[in-house]
Amino acid sequence: MKIEHVNQIAAAVKAVSERNVKNFYFVACGGSMAALSTGDFFLDCEIDIPSRVYTSNEFVHSNPKGLGIESVVILRSHSGTTPETVEAAKFAREKGAVTIAISMDVESPLCKEAEYTVHYNYKDGSDAIDGEIGVYYSLIFNILNTVSPNEKYDRVLSQLNQLESVFERNKKETLERAFQFGSENKREKIIYTMGSGAYYHQAYSFTSCLLMEMLWIHSNAIHTGEYFHGPFEITDYDVPFLIIKGEGPTRPLDERAITFAQKFSDKVEVVDVAEFDYEGIDEDLKEYFGPAIAGVVLRQYADGLAEHTGHPLSVRRYMWKMEY
Amino acid sequence: MKIEHVNQIAAAVKAVSERNVKNFYFVACGGSMAALSTGDFFLDCEIDIPSRVYTSNEFVHSNPKGLGIESVVILRSHSGTTPETVEAAKFAREKGAVTIAISMDVESPLCKEAEYTVHYNYKDGSDAIDGEIGVYYSLIFNILNTVSPNEKYDRVLSQLNQLESVFERNKKETLERAFQFGSENKREKIIYTMGSGAYYHQAYSFTSCLLMEMLWIHSNAIHTGEYFHGPFEITDYDVPFLIIKGEGPTRPLDERAITFAQKFSDKVEVVDVAEFDYEGIDEDLKEYFGPAIAGVVLRQYADGLAEHTGHPLSVRRYMWKMEY
Repeated sequence: MKIEHVNQIAAAVKAVSERNVKNFYFVACGGSMAALSTGDFFLDCEIDIPSRVYTSNEFVHSNPKGLGIESVVILRSHSGTTPETVEAAKFAREKGAVTIAISMDVESPLCKEAEYTVHYNYKDGSDAIDGEIGVYYSLIFNILNTVSPNEKYDRVLSQLNQLESVFERNKKETLERAFQFGSENKREKIIYTMGSGAYYHQAYSFTSCLLMEMLWIHSNAIHTGEYFHGPFEITDYDVPFLIIKGEGPTRPLDERAITFAQKFSDKVEVVDVAEFDYEGIDEDLKEYFGPAIAGVVLRQYADGLAEHTGHPLSVRRYMWKMEY
Repeated sequence: MKIEHVNQIAAAVKAVSERNVKNFYFVACGGSMAALSTGDFFLDCEIDIPSRVYTSNEFVHSNPKGLGIESVVILRSHSGTTPETVEAAKFAREKGAVTIAISMDVESPLCKEAEYTVHYNYKDGSDAIDGEIGVYYSLIFNILNTVSPNEKYDRVLSQLNQLESVFERNKKETLERAFQFGSENKREKIIYTMGSGAYYHQAYSFTSCLLMEMLWIHSNAIHTGEYFHGPFEITDYDVPFLIIKGEGPTRPLDERAITFAQKFSDKVEVVDVAEFDYEGIDEDLKEYFGPAIAGVVLRQYADGLAEHTGHPLSVRRYMWKMEY
């Protein structure tokens, strides 16, 4: 990892370690919120300090009573310009919380508003450890290791060096199937996604940012534990589902939803995270790396849809084109 | 309120007051989870003890590290038979948490598994204060008043006596529009819902339980703060939205989403909670009563769709009809 990232993360983690932290808040919008949610899930499972995720504007307007000088607020915006998230950083900082901004642009408004900055490299040829996932995982597992030291976290941190090759291998191994999915689903007007645990947020991100935003395909990210309590009644032979079968504690929820969906729909695509190639990753750390790999693999499913629908992922009709 | 409910709530609240509560967990599935989420929202805004909502199976499988003897776990199942929630009650009780079960059936498996039971009357002609909302609000505001006494909460508790007449008046005043909505949307295959704050959970419930489960209409409950970060790109002249314009701190988020949606879709239905009839409710308490009234008003929108699609809300193809 590049020294600037190491230093930024060390400064942020030192601030966390020096505070008597009562709660963590993860605050962002859309895909950035989904990305942060992975960290929230890990914290919730691993340590007994509470954490919670908010979309930025809800955070500011609902004004959580627990927010104060014993809070750590982690914010993220890819460009660092998302106005709601910049506002949330300002709001949290005024309340005395430790604020940590994550962005690709260290000079962005978000990074200027927050006390600590953790920036990542984007599409500049850097190794994945210096990219958004490597840097974020490094921050999260350094925080975990500070709050509740565990040799497991040391191993996660050292095996982040494998991210680049793990990503590349898994992208290669799933590319054909992802484009086949794009071909099979190119005429679909609606595609549901499903997941649970840390993977629910991958489903949410795929639904909101890739299907709805970039492909104009209707969607809803259904939690596999919630599927049977309402949503499953829309299942039919011609209703498509893209379901993430996670690697980790909530996998049994996914298995149950897949079994049902496959019985009544002819269009169920399962992305089985346990079947990914984890060479270089310890067996007991797979549940941490799984969501990261799922993200890069799923991106290819969107590429496949873009290819076969002729609708490039870069096309927008509203975003960046007008005031809203 | 009937004395049995008063006594059940008093016993549960006494248990909360005698514990050094470190966190609240709200655990249920589907519509019951959405109903509990209103309490979670109020707690998050009003007191600095953290709270969090889980779908029951995720709660058990992800095994939150913060769960223990200083936790209060509030669970709900309408029938009290939802297996995942019964399991969650058992799991939480084994961890030493205070467990409070909410159900219409005091003899149900859920009520037997939890340490404390708060039951509500259902369709037996009782006043609304003894129904699901009256009893749940009474529990939540008694807990708030115990943790952080405030004369506001006393007033909420006394004005719960108005629920029945407030519900009846607002149902009457919105019935015609709700059925008009049903007529206008009877051929729609997809209807999006939107909301924020406590109302987001009303949108979620309407999407999962009414549109998807009971009417087999595709849907997704979009948070109005998230709309602009992906989902809004599916907006078009012929895409229907049912948007809750909440009464409370997050109303500005809803206003922004409504303004945008109305600009690009010809099919935007706004349910404005501020326009409800609050006679008998103090001005500063509207934000607490709003979500409750919204729930009963929205139910009529589903009745309107059922009437005009000829698809009764009681019809299921999978639920209760098979093992899953």
